[in-house]
Amino acid sequence: MKIFLYGIREDEKGYLKEWTDVHPEVDIAYTDQFLTTETAKLAKGYNGVVTLQMLSYSREALQKLHDYGITKISVRNVGLDGFDFQDLRDLGFSLTNVPVYSPNAIAEHTTSLILRLLRRVPEFDKKFNNADYSWFPTIGEEINGKTVGIVGTGHIGSVVARIMQAMGAKVVAYDIKPNPYLENLGIYVDSLDEVLKQADILTLHTPLAKKDVHMIDAAAIAKMKDGVVIINAARGALIDTDALIAGLDSGKVGGAGLDVLESENAVFQKKFNSLDDVKDPQFKALINRDNVIITPHTAFYTTTAVHNMVFDSLTDNLKMLENKAPKYPVDISED
Amino acid sequence: MKIFLYGIREDEKGYLKEWTDVHPEVDIAYTDQFLTTETAKLAKGYNGVVTLQMLSYSREALQKLHDYGITKISVRNVGLDGFDFQDLRDLGFSLTNVPVYSPNAIAEHTTSLILRLLRRVPEFDKKFNNADYSWFPTIGEEINGKTVGIVGTGHIGSVVARIMQAMGAKVVAYDIKPNPYLENLGIYVDSLDEVLKQADILTLHTPLAKKDVHMIDAAAIAKMKDGVVIINAARGALIDTDALIAGLDSGKVGGAGLDVLESENAVFQKKFNSLDDVKDPQFKALINRDNVIITPHTAFYTTTAVHNMVFDSLTDNLKMLENKAPKYPVDISED
Repeated sequence: MKIFLYGIREDEKGYLKEWTDVHPEVDIAYTDQFLTTETAKLAKGYNGVVTLQMLSYSREALQKLHDYGITKISVRNVGLDGFDFQDLRDLGFSLTNVPVYSPNAIAEHTTSLILRLLRRVPEFDKKFNNADYSWFPTIGEEINGKTVGIVGTGHIGSVVARIMQAMGAKVVAYDIKPNPYLENLGIYVDSLDEVLKQADILTLHTPLAKKDVHMIDAAAIAKMKDGVVIINAARGALIDTDALIAGLDSGKVGGAGLDVLESENAVFQKKFNSLDDVKDPQFKALINRDNVIITPHTAFYTTTAVHNMVFDSLTDNLKMLENKAPKYPVDISED
Repeated sequence: MKIFLYGIREDEKGYLKEWTDVHPEVDIAYTDQFLTTETAKLAKGYNGVVTLQMLSYSREALQKLHDYGITKISVRNVGLDGFDFQDLRDLGFSLTNVPVYSPNAIAEHTTSLILRLLRRVPEFDKKFNNADYSWFPTIGEEINGKTVGIVGTGHIGSVVARIMQAMGAKVVAYDIKPNPYLENLGIYVDSLDEVLKQADILTLHTPLAKKDVHMIDAAAIAKMKDGVVIINAARGALIDTDALIAGLDSGKVGGAGLDVLESENAVFQKKFNSLDDVKDPQFKALINRDNVIITPHTAFYTTTAVHNMVFDSLTDNLKMLENKAPKYPVDISED
């Protein structure tokens, strides 16, 4: 069997070698490029494709794979927003993803963003760099005693809930489908509005369903407590970024920790010569604020997560090629 | 009654006002200076003294207070290493401290230091400041799955244990006097050496008993795992700083998060014109390393903690002045 992988980063190569060491019967090859109409030809002669990208998957690229006889695609991440399922159905593809590679990676990063904001780390860093080791006026706040609102209580949100409770926070959570394993924690409220109203700190852990685009807009922010801290390590489009910027400008929003942005594809994973070369106006309106911390979609980026993303996607791709049931099939029968 | 307070910072003044609002019968006055032989005279005419400082309390300063008829001292913090108890006994002083003002402040800061080191925040910050939003090579590690060694399981260490377990770490702890409330967590091992041997991350939460000066020296570091991450938000002298620097230089120690330093009085709480004016060689050997984060003794520095330090110390000082039993008397009968 032969599998071709797209978008391979340096840090994934060690895990590719580990996987092929235990699967010497499989030939793999890879590129650092993403799957596009141009690069599709690299997969010619291979049986399956494993990929990971923020770009959308074009119908033309998928058509080419189909023409080469490839019908099994495995993505190394959770998110499937780059696919048009209709295209996949039309061309007879089967798809797997890695729905859970490390909830803890993202939950720990979320915790870190909250702590850095509450303890005013950006301001302390500036003072430190200016040889100022004084305390005042950079006094911090604690998670202990605060109300943490969690929207979405799947694999990631439930770990966040556990950590926040251990830190002494009151957790209030909303999910259209409450997690039965969390019912006994007594954290659920009946509506998103109730979470917005109660939270001192609000953190999002939902996928990006179409109805949830701009879930946090100006109207939602208006319902929140003054000084609310908002964390998004889920999907950029869950927040109306302009509304968030307005909230920060007015002081209604006390802080934001953002691992994702609506326009992140223009900035994240790129290296610019200087900030002058970065053109995205939302990004530029957000940085250089002491109460905003942006991380470039790295909440997931741990050795544990990357190992699991490589291993689980390759193993599922091989299973499909061998006509066995993959661990994480994606139901593409409905959009 | 009249109480004089030393070493008052700007951020404490609001809480002083709150306290006097509920104790209109008490007159208070304060200075931002510490209690020294020179400043002792400021307390003349007052009945009690409340203080907080990193400097040692000189016998001469205490003698002066005694000569003014003051025999009740309340410190706003936990640590009593600045006092010679023999001096206090000779001069007939009674002493209170604030043994627990916010364990969570320090436990949360400890968690933040661990997360910032494991997720390589200093390196990501540098990249961000250079308009580099790439991932590689700054891949992180998770607390989940790691072994966290905790030395000292009192008020603070026990909160750290709870948070680390919630994050999915295996916790191993040592305390000369195990905490009965933690026995059921199954975290205790029989010796400090066992903690040193097992820990991927080692964090100290003990007071500074004389026998514990340089608890973490070259011999202790030699017993640790390669790449161990060491956190100290307790007392600087628990670590032989030169041995730690040697461990960082050799790579034996993978990272250090230090909220306290042996020589911190030369640096912390001060504001220099530039780093050139900072002379402490240990401090200078530690900064500018990507795997070291220093915070200027601010683990405790939250609004909750400062509120409690001001309120509990003033309330106990007043109790002593009224010949009532204070909440937190210090036993000075033995050194």
